Amino acid sequence: ASDLHHSCQWGYGIRWGDGPTDTGMQRLALSKDDKSVRDWFIQTMKDLKCNVTVDEMGNIFAVRPGREADVPATFIGSHLDTQPTGGRYDGILGVLAGIEVIKTMNDMGLETEGGVGVVDWTNEEGARFPISMVSSGVWAECIPLAHAHNLKEVPTVASLPTAASAPETMKSALQKIGYLGDIPCSYKSTPMAAHFEVHIEQGPYLVSANQRVGVVTAVQAYRWFRLNIIGRDTHTGTTAFEHRADALYAFAQMMVRAREVAASKGCLASVGIVEAKPGSVNTVPGQVSFSLDIRGPETEQVAEVEKELRTEFDAIAAAEGAGIGKPCRVEWTLDFDSPAVKFHEDCIDCVQQSAQAVVADASVADTKSLVRTIMSGAGHDSVFTSKRVPTSMIFIPCKDGLSHHPEEFSTADDCATGASVILQAVVRYDRK
Amino acid sequence: ASDLHHSCQWGYGIRWGDGPTDTGMQRLALSKDDKSVRDWFIQTMKDLKCNVTVDEMGNIFAVRPGREADVPATFIGSHLDTQPTGGRYDGILGVLAGIEVIKTMNDMGLETEGGVGVVDWTNEEGARFPISMVSSGVWAECIPLAHAHNLKEVPTVASLPTAASAPETMKSALQKIGYLGDIPCSYKSTPMAAHFEVHIEQGPYLVSANQRVGVVTAVQAYRWFRLNIIGRDTHTGTTAFEHRADALYAFAQMMVRAREVAASKGCLASVGIVEAKPGSVNTVPGQVSFSLDIRGPETEQVAEVEKELRTEFDAIAAAEGAGIGKPCRVEWTLDFDSPAVKFHEDCIDCVQQSAQAVVADASVADTKSLVRTIMSGAGHDSVFTSKRVPTSMIFIPCKDGLSHHPEEFSTADDCATGASVILQAVVRYDRK
Ligand SMILES: NC(=O)NCCC(=O)O
Ligand SMILES: NC(=O)NCCC(=O)O
Repeated sequence: ASDLHHSCQWGYGIRWGDGPTDTGMQRLALSKDDKSVRDWFIQTMKDLKCNVTVDEMGNIFAVRPGREADVPATFIGSHLDTQPTGGRYDGILGVLAGIEVIKTMNDMGLETEGGVGVVDWTNEEGARFPISMVSSGVWAECIPLAHAHNLKEVPTVASLPTAASAPETMKSALQKIGYLGDIPCSYKSTPMAAHFEVHIEQGPYLVSANQRVGVVTAVQAYRWFRLNIIGRDTHTGTTAFEHRADALYAFAQMMVRAREVAASKGCLASVGIVEAKPGSVNTVPGQVSFSLDIRGPETEQVAEVEKELRTEFDAIAAAEGAGIGKPCRVEWTLDFDSPAVKFHEDCIDCVQQSAQAVVADASVADTKSLVRTIMSGAGHDSVFTSKRVPTSMIFIPCKDGLSHHPEEFSTADDCATGASVILQAVVRYDRK
Repeated sequence: ASDLHHSCQWGYGIRWGDGPTDTGMQRLALSKDDKSVRDWFIQTMKDLKCNVTVDEMGNIFAVRPGREADVPATFIGSHLDTQPTGGRYDGILGVLAGIEVIKTMNDMGLETEGGVGVVDWTNEEGARFPISMVSSGVWAECIPLAHAHNLKEVPTVASLPTAASAPETMKSALQKIGYLGDIPCSYKSTPMAAHFEVHIEQGPYLVSANQRVGVVTAVQAYRWFRLNIIGRDTHTGTTAFEHRADALYAFAQMMVRAREVAASKGCLASVGIVEAKPGSVNTVPGQVSFSLDIRGPETEQVAEVEKELRTEFDAIAAAEGAGIGKPCRVEWTLDFDSPAVKFHEDCIDCVQQSAQAVVADASVADTKSLVRTIMSGAGHDSVFTSKRVPTSMIFIPCKDGLSHHPEEFSTADDCATGASVILQAVVRYDRK
């Protein structure tokens, strides 16, 4: 846990308390701070006698060799990048737990059949380059390398310290910090026996039930869109409502409607980014672009919400500006599609058994109840590794279920539990 | 009219047609392009034998002397700055009409009692520095000089060519282009006998009634606010709607409600600028700031809309996040307050008589009907001059009533009519 906070010295975010570690994190993918923590991660792994490689997406793989050189390593992976107003646990915990596992194995002199690896996946958050888990996606050969390399950073980060003046591509950002590796980014070049990931829950379920470990069996589906509304710029003071094609007013109606439609289908719909142009107090905005994130337990539910919103948004756009025969138009672009995922039974079993073993010494009557199976609302790199190799995840509680927020917090005990469970899960899997 | 387009060579905006003058304008106040057109304006006026002075707000006064050195000049004024996606007529027409008047007087060898002046007021649009007519406001001693000098440019122009990396203040922007004059900005230091302004109508009333001149008797009231909504950043994928304090969702509801409330009271309410933070696809925005522009024929109506919206916005904010005991909060800042204005009877009479004289030769039976009295929906520098000296305005038709848009257009004939009416009005006023 002290290592966890040590790794947070690069990219301090917003301070929310007086304690030395009471800050959030702002470590956007491939920023200067991300470079610093990467350098530290590599040095740490080399000091632990691991072999380190970097691929074309900047993914960093550190492997502690096993007895059999031919058997692929079992990996522990997550990410070191954060949201612009992120916290100290989302992703970071998963990589740091990996480091803990290797240290413990070294201390114990534990031998494994295959190697044990730790991987830092690039831009998991999708906060700077708008595809989450993009680099595990390329590794799984689900996302073409060129598409990922050409991704442009989102406009909102342009005001943050990461950014060059023109929006940067992922490839140039990789080059700039020296992390465009030469190993192909693919499960063929860097094979894995399995992938395990420990992560904060990001929801209030474990914490409110006083449970200690979530055995993650599935991940909900989601789609990310970029929408553009085209209306007409005009004067705010002289243009009657019925003479307007106000793109921002159309947006406001769409956002209100999106929540209603999603809720009616047991799904979520969220807008995180909005930009209105030209951006002047006394000009009705003629152009608005915004992001839309739709999620639901099943892939079909997300598709249904999308379908209904396409119809509804068209109707809203058509009404705004109809009076002058110049209705607004709305255009959709799909940025990312992540269907629902079920994790691998073998990995789930390993996690389940390990979790029970770790909580067995708790001073409660029914230790079984401290562990539950759970679905992940968020995407993780494990989503993509699961397309190619057996995968599952471990959740630990976090305060108020809060994440993507500076005050994100898990106790040192809970973090240690996560590390113990993943250590046992990896060893169990290795022995299968 | 050719001079008008000549002056538009600095700050071309969006091209909308094939003709050489078929572009909009993007000439934000105190930008490089604004400096160029100012330099040109000063040189032009000096060539016309005018005395030119620049005050502390960068207002440029050019005076053609009259017979009596002690009698203050009668001024023709407007502005050369534009919206980010502005056109070629809003403001520019008024200054260029002034140049035409001086040229014509020189050509005719016309002597006046007092001088005749042309003034270019700085940042009338309020598009870069968010108080419209701020420099005529300082001149009228209605806005303190220090307040105006400390105004910061709006965040949205930060992406435009004008901007330095950190938001610039008006004073530093004046210094940077060499237009921080040393004459105090005050009606006491630069007195005027009267102020006349010709402007495009910016509404579709004259154009749809086939009328040629609007005699402006009044200007509606308006208030500009900056609002801040404070909610809580959180994950879009793992946070149920009832666990959110989504500042952007609160904004969307507020914008929808603002139109309903304003419409119910015969007023307008508009949002031109919105910024959501942190600006990431998968983070629910915890902070939103936006501009609100409320307008109505009477000052009291605007106050009523404001009052009702304060109550409604509080209720919307309180509901969003109530489920987690962390409701959104909304804060209002008044940036600018422009009460309703009635222009001066003497000036209105001069404009009325001049307009009738100019349209008298039209080949229609009832030339009287080509002229009407009208209220301005937009603010103009004449609002502030009217606080200190007799003032009125002349409107000419513009295509579709469109302004703050690249396709803003008035015919050369209509522009010429405007210039003729203001010439006669100035001479009439001088002879009173
Ligand atoms: N865990 C996490 O925050 N991942 C980012 C991808 C997503 O938005 O679900
Ligand atoms: N005429 C004009 O566009 N003035 C700008 C001030 C306003 O918003 O009314």
